Amino acid sequence: MARRTGRRPGNPDTRESILTAARDAFAERGFEAASIRGIATSAGVDPALVHHYFGTKEQLFKACMNFPIDPGEVLPQVLSGGPDEIGERLVRFFLRIWDSPAGVGGVALMRSAVSNEWTARLLREFVTTQMIRHVLPKLTTDPAEAPLRASLVASQMAGLAMIRYVLKLEPLASAPVEVVVAAVAPNVQRYVNGDLGAPHAAQRE
Amino acid sequence: MARRTGRRPGNPDTRESILTAARDAFAERGFEAASIRGIATSAGVDPALVHHYFGTKEQLFKACMNFPIDPGEVLPQVLSGGPDEIGERLVRFFLRIWDSPAGVGGVALMRSAVSNEWTARLLREFVTTQMIRHVLPKLTTDPAEAPLRASLVASQMAGLAMIRYVLKLEPLASAPVEVVVAAVAPNVQRYVNGDLGAPHAAQRE
Repeated sequence: MARRTGRRPGNPDTRESILTAARDAFAERGFEAASIRGIATSAGVDPALVHHYFGTKEQLFKACMNFPIDPGEVLPQVLSGGPDEIGERLVRFFLRIWDSPAGVGGVALMRSAVSNEWTARLLREFVTTQMIRHVLPKLTTDPAEAPLRASLVASQMAGLAMIRYVLKLEPLASAPVEVVVAAVAPNVQRYVNGDLGAPHAAQRE
Repeated sequence: MARRTGRRPGNPDTRESILTAARDAFAERGFEAASIRGIATSAGVDPALVHHYFGTKEQLFKACMNFPIDPGEVLPQVLSGGPDEIGERLVRFFLRIWDSPAGVGGVALMRSAVSNEWTARLLREFVTTQMIRHVLPKLTTDPAEAPLRASLVASQMAGLAMIRYVLKLEPLASAPVEVVVAAVAPNVQRYVNGDLGAPHAAQRE
């Protein structure tokens, strides 16, 4: 679902030049400040060619990340069930993608993000612009909390990917989907809209 | 605390040969099956020299991992407060280590584990032998659940390290310790001894 099944035709060198210029621009200036025009100039091509190959700036950004899926197609499905089911939907969807052949791309992205400051920056930028600004504010009662909640959700999802798919630690590595969903979803749900605790109440009961 | 402040003297080449042989042995055969004698033979030294440089097999194993801390010294402290405070103690301790200069070693270990199948194997082996067998059974009422619980705890801790220290995603990257503890500890606690849900009850209320 939602996977790219083919690439647009075009000169591979030109595509690669555009992607390289775009990665530099997004990593250095961030998603908002980077422009298609600037990227085209760096790559030595016409801006129209960038649009022709990659579509919108957001689509170009996603192409830079080598995402195995298109979050723009996926997120509406995750969000469709109401705020109290986000945890379960998110974990379920995440497992479906990672357990599929597209998961290989996820592992590659994770390796790259960990070993490469440049990919890490792109990934940060992605989470910030796409997830935090667009998604979380819709789910929580206090928009000011959205960034913290998003990074907490990211911590659980990144860790799940790490342990199940990268380090392959058993029994989580081969636990059935329903076991993982039952175990992990409530924790994700708490990060989405549960009580995050009072920071100064250091003594918990 | 618990950090190695110095190294035993000795021929650096010999130390390195022993570590290389030990890493191979632990990764290939696992902690239990690997023997000091076999490692010494591979390294072309006397077993007594391995003990002299590194102490016990467990200490040699930890030296192989380049752990920034000695889990053997740390875990008793984490476990000292009773099963219902493990989540908070674990998160608090984890942050204290990673926020300290030793955290650099943690980031390096994480990078290595993600990009290098060999370190990943050692880390799996470590979690399996040290955490799952020795620690979790003491904390949970059903020892059969301990391995799953341990890998779930690992998923949250690995993800926290990933987001806060490797990807440095804000605001989690620079959130005060108390904010992180209040937010994350209850989730870790649930993995330690909370209800992990019924796998077949796919419909959550």
